[in-house]
Amino acid sequence: MPYFTLDASSLQHWLTNHADLASLLGGSPSAWTIREVSDGNLNTVFLVDGPAGSLCCKQALPHVRVAPDWPMPLERALYEARYMRATADAVRPAAPELYFYDDEMFLLVMECLTPHEVLRTALIRDEVQPGFSAVIGQYVARSVHATSWISQPFEHGSKLLADFAGNTALTRITVDLILTDPFRPCSRNPAPEADLLPDVEALQADKPLHRAVGNLQERFLTARQALLHGDLHTGSIMQHKDDVRVIDGEFATMGPIGFDCGLYLGNLALHACGAPHKGNLITAEITAFWNSFTADFRTLLKTGGGDVWALSDDVEREEMLNTFLHSILQDTTGFCGLEMIRRTIGFAQVADYTLCVTPESRTEARRKALKTGRTLILAAPTVHNLEGLLNLLTLR
Amino acid sequence: MPYFTLDASSLQHWLTNHADLASLLGGSPSAWTIREVSDGNLNTVFLVDGPAGSLCCKQALPHVRVAPDWPMPLERALYEARYMRATADAVRPAAPELYFYDDEMFLLVMECLTPHEVLRTALIRDEVQPGFSAVIGQYVARSVHATSWISQPFEHGSKLLADFAGNTALTRITVDLILTDPFRPCSRNPAPEADLLPDVEALQADKPLHRAVGNLQERFLTARQALLHGDLHTGSIMQHKDDVRVIDGEFATMGPIGFDCGLYLGNLALHACGAPHKGNLITAEITAFWNSFTADFRTLLKTGGGDVWALSDDVEREEMLNTFLHSILQDTTGFCGLEMIRRTIGFAQVADYTLCVTPESRTEARRKALKTGRTLILAAPTVHNLEGLLNLLTLR
Ligand SMILES: Nc1ncnc2c1ncn2[C@@H]1O[C@H](COP(=O)(O)OP(=O)(O)OP(=O)(O)O)[C@@H](O)[C@H]1O
Ligand SMILES: Nc1ncnc2c1ncn2[C@@H]1O[C@H](COP(=O)(O)OP(=O)(O)OP(=O)(O)O)[C@@H](O)[C@H]1O
Repeated sequence: MPYFTLDASSLQHWLTNHADLASLLGGSPSAWTIREVSDGNLNTVFLVDGPAGSLCCKQALPHVRVAPDWPMPLERALYEARYMRATADAVRPAAPELYFYDDEMFLLVMECLTPHEVLRTALIRDEVQPGFSAVIGQYVARSVHATSWISQPFEHGSKLLADFAGNTALTRITVDLILTDPFRPCSRNPAPEADLLPDVEALQADKPLHRAVGNLQERFLTARQALLHGDLHTGSIMQHKDDVRVIDGEFATMGPIGFDCGLYLGNLALHACGAPHKGNLITAEITAFWNSFTADFRTLLKTGGGDVWALSDDVEREEMLNTFLHSILQDTTGFCGLEMIRRTIGFAQVADYTLCVTPESRTEARRKALKTGRTLILAAPTVHNLEGLLNLLTLR
Repeated sequence: MPYFTLDASSLQHWLTNHADLASLLGGSPSAWTIREVSDGNLNTVFLVDGPAGSLCCKQALPHVRVAPDWPMPLERALYEARYMRATADAVRPAAPELYFYDDEMFLLVMECLTPHEVLRTALIRDEVQPGFSAVIGQYVARSVHATSWISQPFEHGSKLLADFAGNTALTRITVDLILTDPFRPCSRNPAPEADLLPDVEALQADKPLHRAVGNLQERFLTARQALLHGDLHTGSIMQHKDDVRVIDGEFATMGPIGFDCGLYLGNLALHACGAPHKGNLITAEITAFWNSFTADFRTLLKTGGGDVWALSDDVEREEMLNTFLHSILQDTTGFCGLEMIRRTIGFAQVADYTLCVTPESRTEARRKALKTGRTLILAAPTVHNLEGLLNLLTLR
């Protein structure tokens, strides 16, 4: 079926033509309820409920959903499907199951997470069950272990390179919106509050900072360590009680492992900037993430490896792994800083700042995020352990 | 035409069906002389002379030419063609022109280099014109500048990643024969001379060395800086007087720039191990290579850049480039050491050792190569300039 943009009624029709999916819903099509829940920037998402079960249907639009004059290739849905397939076995049950991908409609049909809520929203409403970040740490460990050169024969990584190298439209967003635009005057950056303007201008004239950002640009584009989610923020995670799931892998690309870690931690830290009284809670989540990521990665690597480190015995692998985790932590620190800055003054900002009740406190929160982000980017090469990162974050 | 292995007569027939190529040769097919000159490990090469001109025809075999029971996918010819096309404009005239690629016959038809000789052979016969390495330095600078993230929009590099990620059969050779086998007992390694056995055994039990090799494995497979030739040894270069050309790009892959540099310098250094009296000449070539590589790369980068370093001004770019060249030099040092070892005790050894007239001097030459290779691999992270590398090489 050639591509067209689905609405509730055409989606119902499409589902009736897919018997396997229709039978998951059960009953007759008239018994299904379909509601659109799109809240992201890019795509349309419908949740479909039937007597026997429910489905989540996500379709790519030929443009950015929130900016119809910004064209965006439909193929991003294909990369999200590929990412889900490449990582499903490793991360299960920490992601929804992909039931079907329609490569003409650029439509993903997946497990409907219900009554789950987006983590960012739950954090803002203070409705989270502490410790959720341990699941994300495990998720990152498992997804990168399944796709990295140090744990798989290199042919596996080469296949992934070929499968994801074409995802340039979304990588272009990362390169521009995270790695470049916030550090220069750019029409895509919303105008900052007047009180923040001097801080933004200082950041955009900060040469040592730009040099350090240049190093992170280079890391992002050349250090092809493993398959990344590529957009692992708190809005790409849904949770209900202790069931935590990662969604929205359309930015998937081979890259430095610290990129996924840094984006996640950056969004946690941003939440603490918006809600300073939650500094200890967020510090505990950051700790839970890093400890679970490193512990799980260590355990997984014991089960065998790839061509990298093929000559090493257990003792040597342990040492090499320590060095490797150390460098992942440094990347994490730098990318965490980038995310804090771009989500504060760039195109796609975060709702966590709505927690600040006065304009003054909001400006103060943003200023703190910018300052911390800058510190992280500049000091990343000097961080040697989690405590070092926590000290730079000054959330406690 | 479905694939079959060409011989002189079927090649003549094939050429008559390709009018453009036939007219380059001129005259009637009976006036052409065709001779096979295959001297590499993998493929069949024919040189065809006609009244008006000549052609070089290189066809992939379904197996390693010198080991018919070692199957090898024909697609390697496709990657060689892609490599030539991706770099031709940048490196011209330092590579033969590709006239035609037949993707069913896995056949490249290219400019015939005549009366050129393979550089390794010319070095062994002492028939080179000093300074040839400056052309190779320029070749590397130009080919990697045309294909790297710091000099091109990242989409260009992503396209190259996709185009070359499938070249796994030849990358598997690199991973095994260069990065792994020489450091472990392996049936593919020829038995060393009895006198060298203790040295080989020591190398294969050398844990700090294996750890350093592990880092180089990781660099090779994860640091996707630019499109590499991938097998840039003195047998992949032809020259006549001051006309120096790089051939045989079938190992092309995106990887660390220091890999191409290191393989080339390693082969120069091996020559000096086989011919110790030529230490100064080889030192001069190494110097010429590095100086021309760095000077050319600097000049090229001044003409503009990619997404990496996009925020930097001229002064910052200069500083970042210095840091970048420094890290390329460290990679170069490590890969140079690897090449010296693998060409001395691994599957594919070098003819330069035939210059040693007694068995004792040959063993001594090999021992020197192993020792130097080990030193380079271990000391690579401490090298800060060309002089540092030259000191480790101890060829003077
Ligand atoms: N599997 C699912 N089950 C239930 N709800 C879902 C599911 N996937 C997505 N949603 C809902 O749809 C919303 C948008 O999904 P998603 O974040 O994948 O879309 P997007 O347009 O790609 O967003 P972004 O702009 O952040 O990339 C989510 O915030 C969530 O509310
Ligand atoms: N363009 C050319 N003009 C003239 N002679 C050439 C040309 N290309 C290759 N040759 C000759 O053919 C020989 C084999 O070529 P080449 O090294 O490309 O083959 P190969 O089988 O891939 O070698 P290897 O095993 O090193 O990969 C060269 O050593 C050279 O003598």
